[in-house]
Amino acid sequence: MATALIVGAGPGLGAALGRRLAASGFTPILAARDGARAAALAQPLGGRGEAVDAADAASVAALFARLDAAGEPPAIVIYNASARLRGASAELDPAAVAQSLAVTALGGFYVAREAVRRWLERPPGAEGRRGALGFTGASASRKAYPRSAPFAMGKFALRGLAQSLAREYHPLGIHVVHMVIDGGIATEARLREVADPNALLDPDAIAEAYVAALLQPLSAWSHEVELRPYCETF
Amino acid sequence: MATALIVGAGPGLGAALGRRLAASGFTPILAARDGARAAALAQPLGGRGEAVDAADAASVAALFARLDAAGEPPAIVIYNASARLRGASAELDPAAVAQSLAVTALGGFYVAREAVRRWLERPPGAEGRRGALGFTGASASRKAYPRSAPFAMGKFALRGLAQSLAREYHPLGIHVVHMVIDGGIATEARLREVADPNALLDPDAIAEAYVAALLQPLSAWSHEVELRPYCETF
Amino acid sequence: MATALIVGAGPGLGAALGRRLAASGFTPILAARDGARAAALAQPLGGRGEAVDAADAASVAALFARLDAAGEPPAIVIYNASARLRGASAELDPAAVAQSLAVTALGGFYVAREAVRRWLERPPGAEGRRGALGFTGASASRKAYPRSAPFAMGKFALRGLAQSLAREYHPLGIHVVHMVIDGGIATEARLREVADPNALLDPDAIAEAYVAALLQPLSAWSHEVELRPYCETF
Amino acid sequence: MATALIVGAGPGLGAALGRRLAASGFTPILAARDGARAAALAQPLGGRGEAVDAADAASVAALFARLDAAGEPPAIVIYNASARLRGASAELDPAAVAQSLAVTALGGFYVAREAVRRWLERPPGAEGRRGALGFTGASASRKAYPRSAPFAMGKFALRGLAQSLAREYHPLGIHVVHMVIDGGIATEARLREVADPNALLDPDAIAEAYVAALLQPLSAWSHEVELRPYCETF
Repeated sequence: MATALIVGAGPGLGAALGRRLAASGFTPILAARDGARAAALAQPLGGRGEAVDAADAASVAALFARLDAAGEPPAIVIYNASARLRGASAELDPAAVAQSLAVTALGGFYVAREAVRRWLERPPGAEGRRGALGFTGASASRKAYPRSAPFAMGKFALRGLAQSLAREYHPLGIHVVHMVIDGGIATEARLREVADPNALLDPDAIAEAYVAALLQPLSAWSHEVELRPYCETF
Repeated sequence: MATALIVGAGPGLGAALGRRLAASGFTPILAARDGARAAALAQPLGGRGEAVDAADAASVAALFARLDAAGEPPAIVIYNASARLRGASAELDPAAVAQSLAVTALGGFYVAREAVRRWLERPPGAEGRRGALGFTGASASRKAYPRSAPFAMGKFALRGLAQSLAREYHPLGIHVVHMVIDGGIATEARLREVADPNALLDPDAIAEAYVAALLQPLSAWSHEVELRPYCETF
Repeated sequence: MATALIVGAGPGLGAALGRRLAASGFTPILAARDGARAAALAQPLGGRGEAVDAADAASVAALFARLDAAGEPPAIVIYNASARLRGASAELDPAAVAQSLAVTALGGFYVAREAVRRWLERPPGAEGRRGALGFTGASASRKAYPRSAPFAMGKFALRGLAQSLAREYHPLGIHVVHMVIDGGIATEARLREVADPNALLDPDAIAEAYVAALLQPLSAWSHEVELRPYCETF
Repeated sequence: MATALIVGAGPGLGAALGRRLAASGFTPILAARDGARAAALAQPLGGRGEAVDAADAASVAALFARLDAAGEPPAIVIYNASARLRGASAELDPAAVAQSLAVTALGGFYVAREAVRRWLERPPGAEGRRGALGFTGASASRKAYPRSAPFAMGKFALRGLAQSLAREYHPLGIHVVHMVIDGGIATEARLREVADPNALLDPDAIAEAYVAALLQPLSAWSHEVELRPYCETF
């Protein structure tokens, strides 16, 4: 049975993606800095948890090596990690900015590299399909907000990565989806603060659109997909 | 039973949209300049055909008045009409350019206006939902090609219309989807010319993504959706 | 001495463009619906006024024929006309929307067509340069605002026109500049309402950047140029 | 006399910017990894050279501290450094990718941070103007090419940085210009390979547009400026 790997999997969108992928027959592998927490999220979905530091190329390589050893090369890989750093740009700590960019964007490269290498080494599947890569973007992927320069850098970079990979690997049967989440994602805490629950993005609704895109037929692929609540200004 | 109106419905995408909407329980109403042809396409889908000149505001108003009279106000309205005019810009006939812009963009305004007026007059449905509007775009919606100025004008204008309506009416429960078809749509003739059928957009695959977007839950709406074959350069 | 034609020339940006072009040695020809008013603006600049209905292809053709007859084919042509129509989209008059689109976008095509035809018929100038076309855009050229659908359609269409013409005619030595004015232009009335005059775009500052772009050397052309006050949000 | 700092200054665009800034009365300070080489370029322009490793926050801080000590705080700061890495994404060395992103984007943050901190500490100049920041972009800033993922990441990130800083600091009198160089820059070697010298961007023509933007009046600022040869496809 095919597996699907979600890097940067928390209790919100990460778990929802795991649920949705499990519903489509994939065994979800949830990876996060805290492997035990990821395992606790994955277990009810029939999946597994893994520990990874996405900003560290060696840690990402080790994760994929473990999946190889377990005979579980993922057919779908989603990069869902990011690190936001807010504040006046002139007052931010340079090392924290570098770390934010590493988690938000460089880790996406490391993960994509490991996934793509394996897909290209194996014979393709039906109709030449090799795999699907998802990158989770944000409003900041397309509009850079003030007092949020590092996040803008990271999300713009991730968008550039996704777009470059799409142009490079779409013709080889690897589908690359850049999912722009343009609004707040619903959490229990946030839902208590809004009058209308539809003012926040339901993680399961995001997962539905995200996974549908990753499973599209080869004749009609979406690369960039945007989602926002009906009442969100944009 | 709810109806869905497709303006500019031919045997390709228009019919596929009708099929897909019928599968979701809508009675498809296919409207085209040639009403008899539209009726022939709609009949096998359990739908109806209508004649309309989309570039003529009075003809569009008459179409909606006929639907009113039949007690069939559509819950979904898709504007799928366009008129491409190719050639060196300096040599095009001004009247033909004006007509091309009228069919590609102005007709979209006329149709949207009639639909939105009715939705705003009626009480909203579940969760405040009133209706869904689709506009069919093309590669030229976002990149203006040489020797194709009128089509660029029309498709850019249609994108501006869709985006303006989304900002105006999303908060009122009317979902506006701008579907960017970035590649050639498969026809029997075109399929004979390509080695790989997935190099062309399958109308049913487009319809699947198009209707899925129009039926998204309020918490996670896509406004602009792009679709292209896996091997399409962009 | 070379002439420069400004279609849609009023006392603000139109006159400023005339001044700036005169300073660079061009005889400015200011064209507007009211020819006498245009003449009054042009006279102090050593230029001439012309009457034109930009939304009427025949009127535009007649204007260029008069310039031909006077031996004054313009080396620079700027399309500065537009018609904004505000209000809830569902309540706008369809005929007014069509007229708004005609003035804002179709007129740009008519004017460009007449200019380009003449430039292509004549031998090119130094380094193969044939002429320069300017189109005045607005914030609405790139972001479609609610309750302003016709203006969004018109300005999006004009952007598509400019971009298509740039791709078609740049290699033939015709420079196409799309100038995005992202903010309010200073007028005496508006200046009385703001605390800081720099919160509004000074027409002479716009004209400086606009004409500088139109006169760029062939090795480094700007196509789309944006200008906004330092304190404008975007 | 005011100084202008160019970080990442080579014999092409860097030197041309130095020349152009000197012509406007600024003492150019050219900074590069090889300080001696930068000094050799700066000397004929009446300027100075400095050594800096832009990807190292401490090295950037030390550069600005030296300028402070010399009583030469720059009024204009341009980030012109970048590191391109080409090749199939799956085969690139992760450490080289991280280094490419650091030079192309993180260094821009380090340099901007040092400049902005100083401008905000000093009283503003005429009309509230504090300084001007330029970031050199490329075609890859807006379109991510295949087999060039790290450069796409870096240039997208730099664009996000510039746009975020513009929104944050424009209202405080700091002008941020993102200059998109969409084509090849002329070098002696490249000029020997093309039939038409205007097919390459003349560094002096770029510098002319770049510095003109950095010196715009507060009422009409360009944030993103694009330049390409007249015959460049885009």
